[in-house]
Amino acid sequence: MSNSYKLSDYLLDVVKYMGANDIFGVPGDYNLQFLDHITHRQDLKWTGNANELNASYMADGYAREKGFATFVTTFGVGELSAINGLAGSIAEHVPVLEIVGAPTNEVQNNGALVHHTFGDHDFNRFENAHRQLGIKSARLNKDDAVNQINDIAKYIYESKKPAYLILPTNLVEMEVNPSLKDKIADLFIPASHNVEKAFHEIKDAINNSHNPVIIMGHEVDRFNLFEDIKNFSAQNNIPVLDLGLGKGNIDESFANFVGTYNGEISDETINAYVENADTVILVGAKLTDSVTGGFTQQFAENNTIAISYDGASIYGKAVDGDYHFASVMEELSNTTLDLSLPAVKANDSNNSLNPSDAKLTQSFYDQAIANYLNENNTLVAEQGTSFFGLASQKLTKGAKFFGQPLWGSIGYAFPAALGNQIADKNRRVVLSTGEGSLQLTIQEFGLAFREQLHPVMFVIDNTGYTVERVIHGMHESYNDVPGLNYGAMPNAFGASDDQYDFIEASTEKELIDAIEKAKVETDKFVLIQVNMDMQDVPEQLAKTAIAFANQNK
Amino acid sequence: MSNSYKLSDYLLDVVKYMGANDIFGVPGDYNLQFLDHITHRQDLKWTGNANELNASYMADGYAREKGFATFVTTFGVGELSAINGLAGSIAEHVPVLEIVGAPTNEVQNNGALVHHTFGDHDFNRFENAHRQLGIKSARLNKDDAVNQINDIAKYIYESKKPAYLILPTNLVEMEVNPSLKDKIADLFIPASHNVEKAFHEIKDAINNSHNPVIIMGHEVDRFNLFEDIKNFSAQNNIPVLDLGLGKGNIDESFANFVGTYNGEISDETINAYVENADTVILVGAKLTDSVTGGFTQQFAENNTIAISYDGASIYGKAVDGDYHFASVMEELSNTTLDLSLPAVKANDSNNSLNPSDAKLTQSFYDQAIANYLNENNTLVAEQGTSFFGLASQKLTKGAKFFGQPLWGSIGYAFPAALGNQIADKNRRVVLSTGEGSLQLTIQEFGLAFREQLHPVMFVIDNTGYTVERVIHGMHESYNDVPGLNYGAMPNAFGASDDQYDFIEASTEKELIDAIEKAKVETDKFVLIQVNMDMQDVPEQLAKTAIAFANQNK
Repeated sequence: MSNSYKLSDYLLDVVKYMGANDIFGVPGDYNLQFLDHITHRQDLKWTGNANELNASYMADGYAREKGFATFVTTFGVGELSAINGLAGSIAEHVPVLEIVGAPTNEVQNNGALVHHTFGDHDFNRFENAHRQLGIKSARLNKDDAVNQINDIAKYIYESKKPAYLILPTNLVEMEVNPSLKDKIADLFIPASHNVEKAFHEIKDAINNSHNPVIIMGHEVDRFNLFEDIKNFSAQNNIPVLDLGLGKGNIDESFANFVGTYNGEISDETINAYVENADTVILVGAKLTDSVTGGFTQQFAENNTIAISYDGASIYGKAVDGDYHFASVMEELSNTTLDLSLPAVKANDSNNSLNPSDAKLTQSFYDQAIANYLNENNTLVAEQGTSFFGLASQKLTKGAKFFGQPLWGSIGYAFPAALGNQIADKNRRVVLSTGEGSLQLTIQEFGLAFREQLHPVMFVIDNTGYTVERVIHGMHESYNDVPGLNYGAMPNAFGASDDQYDFIEASTEKELIDAIEKAKVETDKFVLIQVNMDMQDVPEQLAKTAIAFANQNK
Repeated sequence: MSNSYKLSDYLLDVVKYMGANDIFGVPGDYNLQFLDHITHRQDLKWTGNANELNASYMADGYAREKGFATFVTTFGVGELSAINGLAGSIAEHVPVLEIVGAPTNEVQNNGALVHHTFGDHDFNRFENAHRQLGIKSARLNKDDAVNQINDIAKYIYESKKPAYLILPTNLVEMEVNPSLKDKIADLFIPASHNVEKAFHEIKDAINNSHNPVIIMGHEVDRFNLFEDIKNFSAQNNIPVLDLGLGKGNIDESFANFVGTYNGEISDETINAYVENADTVILVGAKLTDSVTGGFTQQFAENNTIAISYDGASIYGKAVDGDYHFASVMEELSNTTLDLSLPAVKANDSNNSLNPSDAKLTQSFYDQAIANYLNENNTLVAEQGTSFFGLASQKLTKGAKFFGQPLWGSIGYAFPAALGNQIADKNRRVVLSTGEGSLQLTIQEFGLAFREQLHPVMFVIDNTGYTVERVIHGMHESYNDVPGLNYGAMPNAFGASDDQYDFIEASTEKELIDAIEKAKVETDKFVLIQVNMDMQDVPEQLAKTAIAFANQNK
């Protein structure tokens, strides 16, 4: 590799500019030369994963903190192994770029019988499969590669959605003009949008309502719109709620924030805000079964003003005029309505706990985790009992939270939590998962110890897939998982004794003691096995499960 | 669940008839009811995996012994996690059925915002993605479900290729006529094919050659055609070779079998047979880079008679007349040519080893493993140094072998080996893998111990991806993998002390001692860590790597 400026260098300069300091992935025959360009520079770090699905999850978790992430796979085997993770990023609107190392354009054009293909001369299958998922793609070609990279970068920046880029090995070392680097910033100059017509239509509709509430979805986090909503709410005394698919980098300590809505199974006080509203302003949200107690929300299109990336509608009718999500929200941010609403009543509940020697319950656990968090923590909850119990907890100022309730791919949370931890090592990630989900992606313990990460990890051992048991098959063997020995995992995956602490908690007091220890041991990976009853589920999950089961009939 | 006959029961009766006694997979919200129908019957066993990719690999390994396998996933997240494994089954022509539990037809038709979708009302994306891979699919509907199942079953039986079936939850308990069960056998009555014209064309062409050889590919194993080739060869003194993508249930002790061909990098004596031939009869084979030393075969279309599932050609020209692969091979089986070829010269090499205290080398290892095998063993070789060193070893009578040289998805071999072990517990699987590949799918240790499996497993620890190092980046950090503690894995994954033996071998003598121990400990999972030099590669891999590297320029 010479010192001249190559296409790979340009691509990596773009990636770096977009916010990725760490690049995930798995080496493979068709991406090795490209990886040289990562490992040979000082401002990017290669963080190799144990497999590609884990890489895609880890990148997703990283992007949720940094606003962007990249991972690298190899043709065919690598990209297909990762496709479920990229699909999750599509579903939950997370900006991740996958770079796929591919055979040369010549090998592809000749239809050679190379490995990592079906030996059927067809090199389009895998890109076509990705396209069926609505994933924006580009296969770089010699004549247009820079423009193709720029298009992909702009798409991700504007849409906050994932994309997929195929890099044939013959282009890795292609010389490009070094001055291109100076123009990277120009790619990301926001366009200005005249949304006056759409904005006024929305503003007028809200002005004509009597008792509006705002429910925030996941796009508020992705497009960084919370400050706009906060300003709008503060000026007009509008109560604000979020959804399980909508928590994230949201300040839930904001005075007008009243709670996390989950359909009619929400806490009564939270539910009342929505029940009493004549208009729900739904911002960047999807009302999926998993965050509405199974479609139990008490409002319909005819009392909803929906504002999202894909468009806006007022009581079921699409708004007129040019539309741009962030621009409309920016206008609202500075808007004082004609409504004179009363101040939002503070909703402070006292969650102090008095731990006893009683067997640990899910209910106690959820409150204990919520109480433990400080402004420096990001709580990651796996889509099992963890998510359903923790998503409704109100977060302290500065604390962040995410799960994956729409896509709901079990196993996601562990690599995603590690990726999130890598994205900002000054924060501390707190992961809550279960033994059923953990086994899917457990090999990233190897990465965690190699990278000297120090998260706190709770593994709920309730002898199997409890989230499935309550949907169907409480005592069926298919909901069992092998009994693993979590205390032995760190050592098996390469940890030295001083790198980690393992604690087992079966009672309330043991859990609180474990948490206190975790607070102090900030220089260790703290792994806490939490033993719970097989049938102990968070109340909101118990209710959601009934809806899920009915839905399957 | 009542005792009446349901669509699920019919589907499972078909699956059982086709050869699956064990069903792999992962439970999920949309397949739980269907799983009841598996666990509630005595003649099928549910074997739950740690994740879906592993399930697909395990099914593939099972099908390679039993001729068929089935695994179950859930909609979206599950099926996309498994798609790389099913793609491998497509590439290497392995008959596997994936059953995907899906939301009800009603939920799909309504485009509801349920989890495991993108929340975009589109329920066709995932099936469409599979179709782009050429995977036969069916989404069962109420009116035609039985015919749809029958079509899929016949397709798999006739093509020996994988297929994919979507089972909406509302059809799981649909009543069907119990008498359908009696007609299952009728689905698999072979059609008769008149291939006289095609056969005679092929026979005439061979008769007009002077010095033919036969090279067997993977379809010989899949369509069970070895006996036909053996008969044809024996009657006519035609030397027979196979490919690395072609070993399997092949008797390499057959007198006319002369070796495993790997392009011009094959052993000289093997190469000579092909070099001296004027006509190569290629049966069910694909000449991929990974089994031809990187396209170094010394023959071209103009001296090849190719007979395969997709068609037949003579010196580049497609044969005339109706064609059917197995029928043509059956005709050839009973054919005496006009050629009078000399008897094939026996090719017995003496591979006896004299182990010393010298550091273990890949070369010694490959011979030691080959010598160890008996008629009761199936050797599974991961697509790294393991495959490239072991594929060229001649197998003793009754021993079987497989790898995945065309698709080449690392991590495949471990679950595939376990699946193969489950398929016939009276055989003993011997797995050779490397620490780089093992980490991708390592969590199936949990299944291995839960299911009390007793394979012999060699893990080559050469501090990283040596197969990649020799292609590019010998000393690059991206080819490192975390140093795991293999001796601690069984306990971490739930093994009791008497369930396994762990042995570490760094010298020739230590390896032979470990093998002797493994022979005796037939009631244990024997895990042998084999320590080798980072740069020690099988000779055939060293040569192939140069071709791979050149291909990437």
